[in-house]
Amino acid sequence: MTQPTKNAAKKRPVPTKRSPVVKGAKAPAHSAAEDDVKITALKLPPGKLSPQMQAYFDKCDEKLGFVPNVLKAFAFEDAKLQAFVDYRQQLVQNAETLSKLEIEMIATVVSSQNRCFYCITAHGNGVRQLGDPVLGQMMVMNYRAARLGKRQRAMLDFAVKLTVAPWEIEEEDRERLRRAGFTDRDIWDIASVAAFYNMTNRLASATDMRPNSVYHGQAR
Amino acid sequence: MTQPTKNAAKKRPVPTKRSPVVKGAKAPAHSAAEDDVKITALKLPPGKLSPQMQAYFDKCDEKLGFVPNVLKAFAFEDAKLQAFVDYRQQLVQNAETLSKLEIEMIATVVSSQNRCFYCITAHGNGVRQLGDPVLGQMMVMNYRAARLGKRQRAMLDFAVKLTVAPWEIEEEDRERLRRAGFTDRDIWDIASVAAFYNMTNRLASATDMRPNSVYHGQAR
Amino acid sequence: MTQPTKNAAKKRPVPTKRSPVVKGAKAPAHSAAEDDVKITALKLPPGKLSPQMQAYFDKCDEKLGFVPNVLKAFAFEDAKLQAFVDYRQQLVQNAETLSKLEIEMIATVVSSQNRCFYCITAHGNGVRQLGDPVLGQMMVMNYRAARLGKRQRAMLDFAVKLTVAPWEIEEEDRERLRRAGFTDRDIWDIASVAAFYNMTNRLASATDMRPNSVYHGQAR
Amino acid sequence: MTQPTKNAAKKRPVPTKRSPVVKGAKAPAHSAAEDDVKITALKLPPGKLSPQMQAYFDKCDEKLGFVPNVLKAFAFEDAKLQAFVDYRQQLVQNAETLSKLEIEMIATVVSSQNRCFYCITAHGNGVRQLGDPVLGQMMVMNYRAARLGKRQRAMLDFAVKLTVAPWEIEEEDRERLRRAGFTDRDIWDIASVAAFYNMTNRLASATDMRPNSVYHGQAR
Amino acid sequence: MTQPTKNAAKKRPVPTKRSPVVKGAKAPAHSAAEDDVKITALKLPPGKLSPQMQAYFDKCDEKLGFVPNVLKAFAFEDAKLQAFVDYRQQLVQNAETLSKLEIEMIATVVSSQNRCFYCITAHGNGVRQLGDPVLGQMMVMNYRAARLGKRQRAMLDFAVKLTVAPWEIEEEDRERLRRAGFTDRDIWDIASVAAFYNMTNRLASATDMRPNSVYHGQAR
Amino acid sequence: MTQPTKNAAKKRPVPTKRSPVVKGAKAPAHSAAEDDVKITALKLPPGKLSPQMQAYFDKCDEKLGFVPNVLKAFAFEDAKLQAFVDYRQQLVQNAETLSKLEIEMIATVVSSQNRCFYCITAHGNGVRQLGDPVLGQMMVMNYRAARLGKRQRAMLDFAVKLTVAPWEIEEEDRERLRRAGFTDRDIWDIASVAAFYNMTNRLASATDMRPNSVYHGQAR
Repeated sequence: MTQPTKNAAKKRPVPTKRSPVVKGAKAPAHSAAEDDVKITALKLPPGKLSPQMQAYFDKCDEKLGFVPNVLKAFAFEDAKLQAFVDYRQQLVQNAETLSKLEIEMIATVVSSQNRCFYCITAHGNGVRQLGDPVLGQMMVMNYRAARLGKRQRAMLDFAVKLTVAPWEIEEEDRERLRRAGFTDRDIWDIASVAAFYNMTNRLASATDMRPNSVYHGQAR
Repeated sequence: MTQPTKNAAKKRPVPTKRSPVVKGAKAPAHSAAEDDVKITALKLPPGKLSPQMQAYFDKCDEKLGFVPNVLKAFAFEDAKLQAFVDYRQQLVQNAETLSKLEIEMIATVVSSQNRCFYCITAHGNGVRQLGDPVLGQMMVMNYRAARLGKRQRAMLDFAVKLTVAPWEIEEEDRERLRRAGFTDRDIWDIASVAAFYNMTNRLASATDMRPNSVYHGQAR
Repeated sequence: MTQPTKNAAKKRPVPTKRSPVVKGAKAPAHSAAEDDVKITALKLPPGKLSPQMQAYFDKCDEKLGFVPNVLKAFAFEDAKLQAFVDYRQQLVQNAETLSKLEIEMIATVVSSQNRCFYCITAHGNGVRQLGDPVLGQMMVMNYRAARLGKRQRAMLDFAVKLTVAPWEIEEEDRERLRRAGFTDRDIWDIASVAAFYNMTNRLASATDMRPNSVYHGQAR
Repeated sequence: MTQPTKNAAKKRPVPTKRSPVVKGAKAPAHSAAEDDVKITALKLPPGKLSPQMQAYFDKCDEKLGFVPNVLKAFAFEDAKLQAFVDYRQQLVQNAETLSKLEIEMIATVVSSQNRCFYCITAHGNGVRQLGDPVLGQMMVMNYRAARLGKRQRAMLDFAVKLTVAPWEIEEEDRERLRRAGFTDRDIWDIASVAAFYNMTNRLASATDMRPNSVYHGQAR
Repeated sequence: MTQPTKNAAKKRPVPTKRSPVVKGAKAPAHSAAEDDVKITALKLPPGKLSPQMQAYFDKCDEKLGFVPNVLKAFAFEDAKLQAFVDYRQQLVQNAETLSKLEIEMIATVVSSQNRCFYCITAHGNGVRQLGDPVLGQMMVMNYRAARLGKRQRAMLDFAVKLTVAPWEIEEEDRERLRRAGFTDRDIWDIASVAAFYNMTNRLASATDMRPNSVYHGQAR
Repeated sequence: MTQPTKNAAKKRPVPTKRSPVVKGAKAPAHSAAEDDVKITALKLPPGKLSPQMQAYFDKCDEKLGFVPNVLKAFAFEDAKLQAFVDYRQQLVQNAETLSKLEIEMIATVVSSQNRCFYCITAHGNGVRQLGDPVLGQMMVMNYRAARLGKRQRAMLDFAVKLTVAPWEIEEEDRERLRRAGFTDRDIWDIASVAAFYNMTNRLASATDMRPNSVYHGQAR
């Protein structure tokens, strides 16, 4: 998918100077920097960004130094992009008491369960930035290895069960969250965040969405 | 959750005259009509609907005769409801070539895979309405029993694999869709619909969301 | 498989006036009424019914208005049909304290676990008839959504575990049934019913057995 | 369960002179010979055998030297026992072209998949008797290790898929059997045998049914 | 793989006089005795045994009457064979308090979980020899059928969980072992034995390693 | 487990200056640097290193700047440590044509399948060092996201199948490796490496083995 906005040209990450994967015949033809150019496996004609979305992209550039590829992937149709940004704002970021770190922890653990390259990369980075590098690694690899308090452990256990066997969630699962100090509104928020990444994981996997290469080296 | 809008009072389904499940000691205390009153297991204080959302609810009442409980469940915060309605409009309903029936077929099959009582009920009804009653049943029970053409079979196989093992989706899965006549935009749409219901299934399961009782008897 | 008895001719359901699933190129060539003619994917030469079995078929016609397709499927050899009818009578229907509804609940939940189109259809109908329509739907979709008493919940949990992981059944599983009020004879009956439908589910799936179309609309 | 017939007394296997499992504190209180006395975990009052069933038991004693415990387990009610014996005769043993060995191979492989102690023991013995000891072991452990011809491999692959994921059986699975030389009647028979042992496996697991100790040492 | 040592010639098991599996067209071309000649599916040029390894093989011949095929399989390179023998000695056989029987029980149960023909055969024999024949069968078929004491049941539950879902092992799993009387050193030993057979199971399955035919008939 | 060698004191990694995970009440009491002190959940009395093993530890210190914790974990008994080091040398590192990078790729992908925190950390680092950082991430998250050539893809598919369902490996799996250019010796080596990490993953998970904190930041 060709990047449909002016941002791509302006901010394309400098090709990394990393050496090819393997010398000689075994070297893959693919380098990480390509992921910043060909974002998904789908050829979708570029759309035109509305002023609001252009402003949003500019803000990403300013704050992060890049526009996350997931946004570019939606940008083939401005109305879809807008709806995605709004939904994420309202149903993920506007949690009442969950911290930003906790939201990133849920996102990473759910994405690890679904083995989604894009989302583990982006949200593992989020945990590294807001928490610490090792916590980020544990969320990627096996959250059970982290020595979490009762609250965060209950939160992640719920998110994982909701990901793997949603049909088995029952009142006793909600009760365990309440016993760990969560309100009913928190339960909604945990469910909403976990459910959202179950959606994006599948959108990313369905389209082979590639994470911005810059994520990999941050906050290590 | 108490229904936060005027609609509940106005349109509450008449208690069905169905006899209790089992006579005597075994009868469950629960009847289907309760599902129209206590919509989820969470106690969330009612929010105030914006004029747009109130108008949307009124339109539901007018067209369907009721407001789907999923909308009432989101209505504890108008901005969340608005974002949900918009996202669903843009990323599910605005598919380019998928028919309304095909969208409902994907929704039902994904929800059946996740054994989500709310979503199977609502979208199984959708397939019955737009397709026919038996097709609806087959989507609920086992879509492989339906004698579908190549296009719809490939579409549902993709949606199910994306639901069950998203990490195994690769280029050959997209190629199979292309060979069945789908464009890259269609692949986005199929993925988007399947991913969306993987989200709502989990939100419904996490909160024990109950479908409007009226769905059960429609289009049989 | 050609229907080997006089019943088929006499009682063949009137072709439903349902419109084809999708207009145009997407319409499946198959309609539900065909399921009443071509019952399985196997071409087995018709057998001759014994007087007893003919009487049994006549009684079905009289009481139900049709002969269940599973019986027609066995009828290619009268001795097999007889053995099936007897076994079902003795090991399913002659339960000591399980109610008819409870037997249908086990049958539906086991069949849902095995995603068997034939058996979910036939026994989901049984639950709708003996219990109520919504209970029937919950048994089909996810029995955990039903607000069952301790007895029926324990009964169905046992049946599902026995279906999914029979090797993990141990004394504590039987003890849970006893604590829910079941006798050892009841445990035999629950096991016998669940085991029986694990058999018929597989016979139906192996042969693509199709349920009588009349089931779909009953007791809605 | 107390053995309800005269056979138990007459033919109870001589307690084996095998030493206890482990010397000292670790020795389990249980020896194999107990399995010939306490056949299931259920206490079901003994029934009275009809003359036909008594004759059948006598024939077992005469031919095998013992009455298989599964028959004793059903004998708490003569009508159930009769129905079981008839069904097995008609739907398992009366296969058209499957050899007795092939029937035992299916029974063992299905039972191994369901990890059923009773049925693996009894039918593994069957394969050892009718085939050879090593073939019996391979059916118990992993049938893929046996170097089977196309016919038997296709037969067992079908039986295993029907056991593990019956909902995925489709026309191409039946076609593979046909290409391996099986008729539609054979497909019925293979399905019928595999389905039957999926039933008995669950009945045995649900009741902790114990195989006659004499099986273990035969045909080694 | 051709057997690289003098042992093969010297001690090759006498071809068993077992009749072919099935008479006529269905008979597999393979007999158990072939497993003593063609040990794996890989053609690896024979290596030369060091004096130590030759002595070890001679000791096997003397004590067991044969050299286990797994040793012959490693013998294409003496250093690999030596490392395998040493590792097994140190990390499996040198357990502190686990009995030889308990080690064989873990080996058999892990191998049964992984359905490894070679290892179930060899270690099932080990349990038969050190314990008793029926205990051996139960370890092969379903260890839950054995009436084990708390110690051995906890040990095998841990080994199975470690085999099936190692990522879910947590402190409470270790605590259960401690409550059953195991020391931290015992936990290491149980884990080490279970982990080792998870390795050999995969090496055997990857190479289609065949057990010595002599195992099958021993200690029955 | 207390570190039994002089190395711990000499080379203990400087506590990182990373801030605690979360400020306030949610902060876990655990920091990554603790992983360099308390290596496993087992309290095993320290052993004495032989001169050879001491030399090996010194060489690790010299080359890597630290002794990998897995070696310290085995060091409670020198003979076990020695056997582990030798086995790994012979059966993992002495592969004939597999490159060091390929060995690390197999190790990481197998460990990711088993969600082993220790081994993913150590071998993900190996892939980053020998390959490149992004390849390392893809091996950790989902190897299917990497655009590998036929050889490496076949190699990893085999390793994953051998990890997840070893009982389903058959001649056609080996044939696929041969078609990708691997010799029989290579097949042994791939199997040997994959099998080895299936062992260490389980040893690490069973004991909650913690990776050296220094791994996390290397080669990013």
